[in-house]
Amino acid sequence: MRRKSEVHPLSVLRRDPVSGSWVIVTEERAARPNDFSSNGDRPRVCPFCEGNERETPHEIRVHRPRGESDGPGWTWRVVPNSFAALRIEGEPQAIFDGLHDRMNGIGAHEVVIETPRHDARLPEYSVEKIASLLEVYRERVEDLHRDPRFPYVQVFRNYLPDAGASLRHPHSQVIALPMVPRRVLEEMHNAREYRLAHGRCIFCELADTELREGLRLVDANEHFVAYCPYAATLPFETWIQPRRHAAQFAAIPQECMPELALLLKRVLWALQEAAGDPPYNLVVHGAPADFRCSDPRSGDTKPEAFHWHIEILPRITRFAGFEMGTGFHINPMPPENAAAAMRRVLEGNPLIPDLVTT
Amino acid sequence: MRRKSEVHPLSVLRRDPVSGSWVIVTEERAARPNDFSSNGDRPRVCPFCEGNERETPHEIRVHRPRGESDGPGWTWRVVPNSFAALRIEGEPQAIFDGLHDRMNGIGAHEVVIETPRHDARLPEYSVEKIASLLEVYRERVEDLHRDPRFPYVQVFRNYLPDAGASLRHPHSQVIALPMVPRRVLEEMHNAREYRLAHGRCIFCELADTELREGLRLVDANEHFVAYCPYAATLPFETWIQPRRHAAQFAAIPQECMPELALLLKRVLWALQEAAGDPPYNLVVHGAPADFRCSDPRSGDTKPEAFHWHIEILPRITRFAGFEMGTGFHINPMPPENAAAAMRRVLEGNPLIPDLVTT
Repeated sequence: MRRKSEVHPLSVLRRDPVSGSWVIVTEERAARPNDFSSNGDRPRVCPFCEGNERETPHEIRVHRPRGESDGPGWTWRVVPNSFAALRIEGEPQAIFDGLHDRMNGIGAHEVVIETPRHDARLPEYSVEKIASLLEVYRERVEDLHRDPRFPYVQVFRNYLPDAGASLRHPHSQVIALPMVPRRVLEEMHNAREYRLAHGRCIFCELADTELREGLRLVDANEHFVAYCPYAATLPFETWIQPRRHAAQFAAIPQECMPELALLLKRVLWALQEAAGDPPYNLVVHGAPADFRCSDPRSGDTKPEAFHWHIEILPRITRFAGFEMGTGFHINPMPPENAAAAMRRVLEGNPLIPDLVTT
Repeated sequence: MRRKSEVHPLSVLRRDPVSGSWVIVTEERAARPNDFSSNGDRPRVCPFCEGNERETPHEIRVHRPRGESDGPGWTWRVVPNSFAALRIEGEPQAIFDGLHDRMNGIGAHEVVIETPRHDARLPEYSVEKIASLLEVYRERVEDLHRDPRFPYVQVFRNYLPDAGASLRHPHSQVIALPMVPRRVLEEMHNAREYRLAHGRCIFCELADTELREGLRLVDANEHFVAYCPYAATLPFETWIQPRRHAAQFAAIPQECMPELALLLKRVLWALQEAAGDPPYNLVVHGAPADFRCSDPRSGDTKPEAFHWHIEILPRITRFAGFEMGTGFHINPMPPENAAAAMRRVLEGNPLIPDLVTT
């Protein structure tokens, strides 16, 4: 009956000794449904639409003013990903020989179905709706951080196929990992080095600088600031962070959520209007849980030197051989120009529609 | 008359203090021609076809059995990129303040027009043709390494639009950089760590292991080996490297070129047949030139701990928020399966066509 909840990938985590990167190797995900495929194998029904709750595994969390578990009547649902990259059962079993480092593919992979409305766009959600989505993010990070097997939780959102979205229905994803990923370790390492050298959190410094100079500022309110980073790798790349120092995303005070939601709504609206509704990834970077870690590189990182932030990464340019080979990017849109274009959208004091309230 | 050779971008190199990555910020490249764009602004003429030599800047190198400079009669040409990401004139001028590190955008950006044939595919080149292309790569790396401003030279090739190719006509690119990119620094660092810990070059170890185990082996001959790496991040990702230790790509002995060319032909043919002619990037990773470097991270890397290799990176999967946020990849094709599929193509001893000899 609930066949889909029984699908578990035979995935394994492998670490490349040359690059130092981990990869999840799996054979299961090729079978996942795709709204956007051109070869005609569209799923008959959208598994995220109201009435199709049986197409997903059982709810982990839900807001349902009326109706029964795993039935209609909800405004958002959190469910395990039917085509999960990692499985929740098991203890970490690692084999590190320096050449073929590997670990069993444990982790969590959840989907946040944000609204019953199939064609909704996030900047058209009401501020209250966005605040409740951010609160779901916060709660899932906090809850998964309690599991000592998962030092790091990645929240992300893919918008449109060029950003990797396989289903159109608005959703976010949460992946809990048995190690802290390299990109986050690097950011933590660099934040710690900066603090040692300059005596201050680099993100606090960045926020102050962008607010003072204004050149790359997109929007700000009392507790949060949005700016295009100085070395933006992508056109219209925008970071949102708290103005006051906070390492953990899960530490956002609840009373600040509406303010963060309003800023996110305005930034995504400005992006949509200034850049022609581009595909984007939204990723949340926060400090890992306090944990004992088997990765030697994370031993010298101090979560408190980190500062949580949201990165909005528009996918307008393509990564070619130069980017793949060097990690360098070529950004044809200076962040000063991108920020100015987004500010122009917002300076007209637009009445941003609240089309989606549930 | 030669307007295009005068186009120089006002590009600048910026370094992100959080990620440690450099980015080239430029406003010029958006204007470059695109064979594949869907909005109707196809270039009237292919700038790389025979007879259209005036559409490119003056030749840097050429093989022209007959005819005059910048005219027809060539089998390959090397020209500056008309829409270069970096400009060749000037001395490095860096400002490092830890927050907004930047450098003027000096460097070289060249295009290798591989053949006059517009629709040719690399695995259909004759072995002699591929050997001469690899010799062009080698000569450009060696020549640009002589310039003390450019410690690193990246050779790469984009095949099809999903791999970032904007023109169909077969071409490779060469970019000389005023610093060693982070991805190469990381590989060098990890290679050095492995050598310190295990007393041996990690690439030599990998080659021996893959040849012995055979599970991920694609092809090999006396001096070179091709395999799908254990922690491949992409389906059908394949590395080619010399079996004997060599840090510098430019150090390939000329007598080995035909053997490397044959291996590359067979591997790209196997990829084309096993994976349905996918888009791919080919990138060459070699040790930097011996140089004085302003990047403190490269001070402790020893080029001789490196081992040059070619990475073939098929672009079948998309990078979504998880990959963008973590640097982790999800690879739905275990490299053992990819290598087996490519070996099956080659085991039939195929007669791979030599359609392109000039």
